[in-house]
Amino acid sequence: MSKQTTLDELGEFGLISHITKKFQSQRDTTIRGIGDDCAVLQKDAKNHTLVTTDLLMEGIHFDLLFTPLKHLGYKAVTVNLSDIYAMNGIPESITVSIAVSAKFTVEAIEQLYDGIKLACDTYNVDLIGGDTSSSVTGLAISVTAIGSVPVKQVVYRNTAQINDLICVSGDLGAAYSGLQVMQREQSVYEQTGGAQPQLEGYEYVIERHLKPEARKDIIDQLREANIVPTAMIDISDGLSSELFHICSLSNVGCHIYEDKIPIHKETSQVVAEFEVDPVIPALNGGEDYELLFTVPIDSYKEVLKIKGVSVIGSIVEKEQSLSMITRSGSPVTLKAQGWNTFE
Amino acid sequence: MSKQTTLDELGEFGLISHITKKFQSQRDTTIRGIGDDCAVLQKDAKNHTLVTTDLLMEGIHFDLLFTPLKHLGYKAVTVNLSDIYAMNGIPESITVSIAVSAKFTVEAIEQLYDGIKLACDTYNVDLIGGDTSSSVTGLAISVTAIGSVPVKQVVYRNTAQINDLICVSGDLGAAYSGLQVMQREQSVYEQTGGAQPQLEGYEYVIERHLKPEARKDIIDQLREANIVPTAMIDISDGLSSELFHICSLSNVGCHIYEDKIPIHKETSQVVAEFEVDPVIPALNGGEDYELLFTVPIDSYKEVLKIKGVSVIGSIVEKEQSLSMITRSGSPVTLKAQGWNTFE
Repeated sequence: MSKQTTLDELGEFGLISHITKKFQSQRDTTIRGIGDDCAVLQKDAKNHTLVTTDLLMEGIHFDLLFTPLKHLGYKAVTVNLSDIYAMNGIPESITVSIAVSAKFTVEAIEQLYDGIKLACDTYNVDLIGGDTSSSVTGLAISVTAIGSVPVKQVVYRNTAQINDLICVSGDLGAAYSGLQVMQREQSVYEQTGGAQPQLEGYEYVIERHLKPEARKDIIDQLREANIVPTAMIDISDGLSSELFHICSLSNVGCHIYEDKIPIHKETSQVVAEFEVDPVIPALNGGEDYELLFTVPIDSYKEVLKIKGVSVIGSIVEKEQSLSMITRSGSPVTLKAQGWNTFE
Repeated sequence: MSKQTTLDELGEFGLISHITKKFQSQRDTTIRGIGDDCAVLQKDAKNHTLVTTDLLMEGIHFDLLFTPLKHLGYKAVTVNLSDIYAMNGIPESITVSIAVSAKFTVEAIEQLYDGIKLACDTYNVDLIGGDTSSSVTGLAISVTAIGSVPVKQVVYRNTAQINDLICVSGDLGAAYSGLQVMQREQSVYEQTGGAQPQLEGYEYVIERHLKPEARKDIIDQLREANIVPTAMIDISDGLSSELFHICSLSNVGCHIYEDKIPIHKETSQVVAEFEVDPVIPALNGGEDYELLFTVPIDSYKEVLKIKGVSVIGSIVEKEQSLSMITRSGSPVTLKAQGWNTFE
């Protein structure tokens, strides 16, 4: 029998790179294939088309026990729109395919699509197609988002420059903290045979987990300020993992400052209950869907004017590696954690 | 408790129409949303972008017991390309997302992607992105295909004209017959505790099921002959169901002739073993992925020159309904069968 390799030996990123190395683009119109937040296709002389897709599986990406279907529909769309914004683009259309078991009712599917419609209306995106089928097991949702970006404004991951400032939108670690709270309350519910979940005081972190927004507002403000980031990515797997993508692809290093990392007050309170340092979910928690981007240092004053953006460090030479200067002033080396869904 | 409606009360088409009636296109660039083989988006002054997507679930769309992974990868791509051709377009890019259980090996996933790559190479299409994740249960594959078509050559379902000729490519019913053979052999294998499947003499129908091609050759020939069909659809749910789509959307009827419906010799032999009239799988079997299209009657001579095309009838007034003239000369009314995956 020939060699058989298990998936957790490779992990998700290893698997993607293993598979995709055999695929070479054949068409001139494919500007950028696999390897960024979106694929980039030639649209016309002045614009590119952006394409991104996600497949969400019940039991892996969501738990229907504590995920309202309307929120799930909303989130399935916004996480894809986030990838379009991460290329500095504007989303225009989505397709949505679902596979559902026969136990689902039409009313349940309507709730899911109510969330999808709310996201379409909020972000001015058209639902243009999709597929529906049955599933012998759990719910599967596949969303593809399509957008556009002027050729001169597209932003990739691999173009950060030494001395650039590192910026992040919103705050980090909240979605992961919200998930922790919900899993705790679920566990209490099961152990007590039905105690009502205590969710008061956790509204912010739970909403960040269940109903994340895509940062259209940041992209709009960057355009108004005439700032084109040098590199950008959305934070789906944690700050640390995304900094690794930008730095390794741009062949640079980075220094970030622990006390500059934006963390919401409620997030800090929640993680304290779990006896965790709040910087841990900020660095390694997933699903914040904030934007991480770099700008030239002479944009410093302009970028500070953008509402909801923090400057957390700067790009350095590759030899200086990736490090975080802690509150006590000592550097620690960052590790690419991210989520390995195969573990 | 409010009213709960089961999915099989509505069926797939009912569900789609129920959900999508709430969605209205907001953007001028959305030329055609849900309701055809592809969505149509404005690309530039002379071209449209085409988008189509499918979600394939293990246990519903394929059975890994008798589906080689390489064939499955190939088919997952070609069924989407078929939808691009059905708009008279040229496919350019695909995204592929997969969710796999931990029991899958890297080598198994490689086989799947070998099939995807073979389809990309055969049809000159780039793999531009996707998503990989784990699944707690079966394999899920989501493919989105993107293509383009000159504005003046796009062909919809709803534009068939009275007196048009009805044409079909290739032959019908073979894929369904191949599936029947494989299911029979699977059943024998299980009942006998391991008798080798007898597949000799069934090569054509099995290949039509496992590894369907998209009819790029027909689209190429139509362009060379300067024929733009008046309406077109690909045959994924059987001839009868697709004729219903074209006729109801175009507000017309049709007459087709049983003796003109192209059926491969092997298909006729196979269905005879199952004691079924060969016209049944041709009308109601699924997954042929042939093209069904209409052309003006003055294209008769030109369309006959196209290799692999049969003229099977003509478009009539709506009042004359949808009927098939049998070999004995009597008309029977066609029924929209298609596949209801929720049953």
